[in-house]
Parts: sequence; C-alpha cells; structure tokens
Amino acid sequence: MEISGTVSAILAQKKTSTVWSIEPDATVFQAIELMSQKNVGALPVLENDRLVGIISERDYTRKVILKGRSSKETAIREIMTDTVETVSPNDSVSKCMHIITQERVRHLPVLENSKLIGMLSIGDLLKWIISVQDMAIDNLERFVTGSEPAI
Amino acid sequence: MEISGTVSAILAQKKTSTVWSIEPDATVFQAIELMSQKNVGALPVLENDRLVGIISERDYTRKVILKGRSSKETAIREIMTDTVETVSPNDSVSKCMHIITQERVRHLPVLENSKLIGMLSIGDLLKWIISVQDMAIDNLERFVTGSEPAI
Repeated sequence: MEISGTVSAILAQKKTSTVWSIEPDATVFQAIELMSQKNVGALPVLENDRLVGIISERDYTRKVILKGRSSKETAIREIMTDTVETVSPNDSVSKCMHIITQERVRHLPVLENSKLIGMLSIGDLLKWIISVQDMAIDNLERFVTGSEPAI
Repeated sequence: MEISGTVSAILAQKKTSTVWSIEPDATVFQAIELMSQKNVGALPVLENDRLVGIISERDYTRKVILKGRSSKETAIREIMTDTVETVSPNDSVSKCMHIITQERVRHLPVLENSKLIGMLSIGDLLKWIISVQDMAIDNLERFVTGSEPAI
C-alpha cells in the first residue's frame, strides 16, 4: 500500500518541464495574469535566481482586496508566502504527501543545489498515485491470466 | 495498491461536518470573505437548497479583475462554474481521484437524493490516502512482530 516513487519521477511524468516564475517586484496583477496564461495555480518567486517565496491563488484571494490592497499597486513581495517548504529530486512521494497535508499547501518547489528545477502540485501527486495504482492492477491482471509474472 | 474507501468514510474523517454555502445573487466579494473566514478554497452555490454551481479561488483569480470586473459589483452567478461534477456518499475514493484528476478540479460536492451533504477537496483525498497507507503499514508491522495477524 506504500506509494512508491520519487519527486524526479513525478517531474518526468509532467506534460511540460518549463517552470514559470516571477520576480518579487512585479505586481500582483502581473502574477495573476501569468498564472492565467500558463494555467497554473501558483508561481515561485525568484530574486537573482534564488527562490524567495511563492505566490498562489490563495494569497491573491486572501491578502489583496480583503486587506484593502489593489492588485495593480501591490508588489508580489508584500503578499507572497516567504517561508516555503521545498523538496529535492530524490525525496519520496510519501514525504511530499505528508508535507502537503500537514502544511496545507498545494505546491512544492523542487530545488537541486539551491536551484529551482520544478514545481510539484497536489494535482501532480494525485495523478502519480493513480498511475502507480493502475500499474499495480495491470501487473496483477497479467499475473492472474498467466501472461507474465508479477514483480 | 488499490486505495479503498468511500466518500462517506472521508466525510466522517473531516474535522468539521458543516458545509458552508452561498447564494448566486451574493457578490463575489462576499464569497471570498466567507472563504477566508471559513478557511476553504471553494463554496457550493445554492439556490432554494439546490446546487447550481461552485465558486472557487480559481474562478475569482481568473474571471474578475482579468476580465475587467469588480468583486463588489459582480454577482456570483456571473462567474461561478455551473457545470459541476458531483459524487454520492457510496462512490469510491478511486472514482473521486479519477474525476479530480481528469476534470482538473479541486472540489467535489457530495449529493444524497439531490441534497448537498458535504464537500470533498483534493486535500481531503490525499489525507485519506495517507491514512489508509499508514494503517496498512501498522497492520503489516503487527503481523511481522507477531503481535497480531495481518488482515
């Protein structure tokens, strides 16, 4: 029942390997425009190639108009989440599941030697779990029908 | 490797059983206020106790300021997602996982005889998968140490 796999395997399964990011001095409006264009729910915030935070749909929903701010006049650094949980390519899927559940976040930036190399979302994780499950079932069916031994 | 369980078991595991909802003629601003107060990412939209849509952080982020609208002057019905995938209490966890992944949604309203009785989020699903996994490991450990038979 343990879900196998690593972060790098999930990244390899994603349709696109491009990681969209934004600078902390861009406006919140620019962030939501980019999220919409790229169809993502959060963006890593990079300053001189270093990860300094994340800005998500949740940050936008909770910290702009409800706090009397305007998206066109607010810099991302004012509302971004700056204590970010990150993972590395060799971390296990199980570890990611626990972080996402305990910290109530939907996105985990993936760092390799302090460099951002990917973003892992809660949706990517669920998709991975389904594929692992389907593989196990396929494998079992082949074993039962005698066409191949289960590994 | 098949993840067991039903929608009703997940609902029972949730900390709160209250389902917050809103009416389609309320403003988008009221919706994001309520989402923030209740710490949820989406609200089912009810008209005369009937589910007519969902409004989420994503709807707010994508369809208000980017489309030239204002949250205080826009009714929820103008931007809500009105074709909503729903599940019933007896549906399997596996079915929910597939809907959430295929439809790229984060929330599934739970209906029983057309009545809304709960909301299931992608986070609830992941939490469930972790608990099923941990139970299986516990069980295996008890079996290996001889204190109890594995079921």
